[in-house]
Amino acid sequence: MERPIDVLNNAKGKRVLIKLKKGPEISGLLQALDLHLNMWLENAEQISEGETIKLGTVLVRGDNILYVSPEKSEKE
Amino acid sequence: MERPIDVLNNAKGKRVLIKLKKGPEISGLLQALDLHLNMWLENAEQISEGETIKLGTVLVRGDNILYVSPEKSEKE
Amino acid sequence: MERPIDVLNNAKGKRVLIKLKKGPEISGLLQALDLHLNMWLENAEQISEGETIKLGTVLVRGDNILYVSPEKSEKE
Amino acid sequence: MERPIDVLNNAKGKRVLIKLKKGPEISGLLQALDLHLNMWLENAEQISEGETIKLGTVLVRGDNILYVSPEKSEKE
Amino acid sequence: MERPIDVLNNAKGKRVLIKLKKGPEISGLLQALDLHLNMWLENAEQISEGETIKLGTVLVRGDNILYVSPEKSEKE
Amino acid sequence: MERPIDVLNNAKGKRVLIKLKKGPEISGLLQALDLHLNMWLENAEQISEGETIKLGTVLVRGDNILYVSPEKSEKE
Amino acid sequence: MERPIDVLNNAKGKRVLIKLKKGPEISGLLQALDLHLNMWLENAEQISEGETIKLGTVLVRGDNILYVSPEKSEKE
Repeated sequence: MERPIDVLNNAKGKRVLIKLKKGPEISGLLQALDLHLNMWLENAEQISEGETIKLGTVLVRGDNILYVSPEKSEKE
Repeated sequence: MERPIDVLNNAKGKRVLIKLKKGPEISGLLQALDLHLNMWLENAEQISEGETIKLGTVLVRGDNILYVSPEKSEKE
Repeated sequence: MERPIDVLNNAKGKRVLIKLKKGPEISGLLQALDLHLNMWLENAEQISEGETIKLGTVLVRGDNILYVSPEKSEKE
Repeated sequence: MERPIDVLNNAKGKRVLIKLKKGPEISGLLQALDLHLNMWLENAEQISEGETIKLGTVLVRGDNILYVSPEKSEKE
Repeated sequence: MERPIDVLNNAKGKRVLIKLKKGPEISGLLQALDLHLNMWLENAEQISEGETIKLGTVLVRGDNILYVSPEKSEKE
Repeated sequence: MERPIDVLNNAKGKRVLIKLKKGPEISGLLQALDLHLNMWLENAEQISEGETIKLGTVLVRGDNILYVSPEKSEKE
Repeated sequence: MERPIDVLNNAKGKRVLIKLKKGPEISGLLQALDLHLNMWLENAEQISEGETIKLGTVLVRGDNILYVSPEKSEKE
């Protein structure tokens, strides 16, 4: 049976967009995640009011997350 | 014995409407869910003040949810 | 020994009124509930400042609830 | 060894006053309670700015509670 | 090995002062407590902006507490 | 393997400074602590806008804490 | 299988930057961490509106954290 988290397990190595409960959006290449939605991202960027700040490698604590969306690959 | 979550297990593959504690409503085709109400949606949309934004595939973290409502099929 | 939740187990199939921590009241026919007070309602309505909005079938996440009150049947 | 909750186990069938974290006070006859301080009250009333509203039977979710006080019987 | 809660186990029967996260201070004779810092107090008083309100017997839910301080006996 | 809490286990008997999520700072001699960061302090003081208030013995509930810093001994 | 926390296990002894949910940023040399993201830092600094305050040794409680970013070494 599929679990919600499988949508992210399938997105490893791809770029995901994290919408936080408060504050900016964060995007990055998904390296690892767990059941709390803690996420390790590479090449991460913070997007706030149209401005992009490079964060590099980050661990986002899952309890800050509203939703996560894997970016569509161009072939899809 | 029926559990509250069964109302959503029966709604897999159908469109559900998520009312968040704060912020916009999100609707999408329910792909998977768990006991925390984490939900994987396909063809998701965010509805905020009458404006609709396409989100595509999303994983909504369950602790943000006020209530979830499966859309009625037209035959019902 | 009676548990608090038994007051709602006895109210299955009857209309209950949910007072949320924030925002509107929700009423509906109680179909199922669990120990977190997650509740599956049928024929649900949202009552906000005197205005009633039909919600149909909903699953309310229990952590939003301040209190729940089963409606008295007219014979009581 | 006595536990804090024993003060309420001893108050079953008596009127208790619940001070909520936010909003009104609620009083009622204590029917049942659990370790989360979920409480089933009969003949409950909500007291807000001097105004009393009859609630009848309610289940109060324990995480809303600041403190609970059993009313003194007149013989005490 | 000593645990933080032992400072309150040693204060049973004595007056303690509870500083809440929000709102008034509460003092009372400590009757019982548990690991969540739920506390049963006798002869409790609420102190708010210099005004004292008698509460009598109360059970304070531990998650509201910032800190607790046992009153010094006069011999100490 | 070292755990974060070991930095405080090594600070027992020494003065620590607690930065709370909201409100004043609290300092005191660390007597005992647990994994939730509940802390028993002796000779505690509350520091708020440059003003110091003596608290004596306190148990600080760990969920209020932003960070804790052991004071450097003068020899270090 | 990699876990999100491994990105920080690999950063022990290096400087990390902690973005808090509210308030300042904190940076320091990572000494130890656990699954709640409680973190023991040495030579920590608090950065708030361009101003830097030396904190020395700190234990940051994990539930305050939005994200953590290990600083890139200059060779990378």
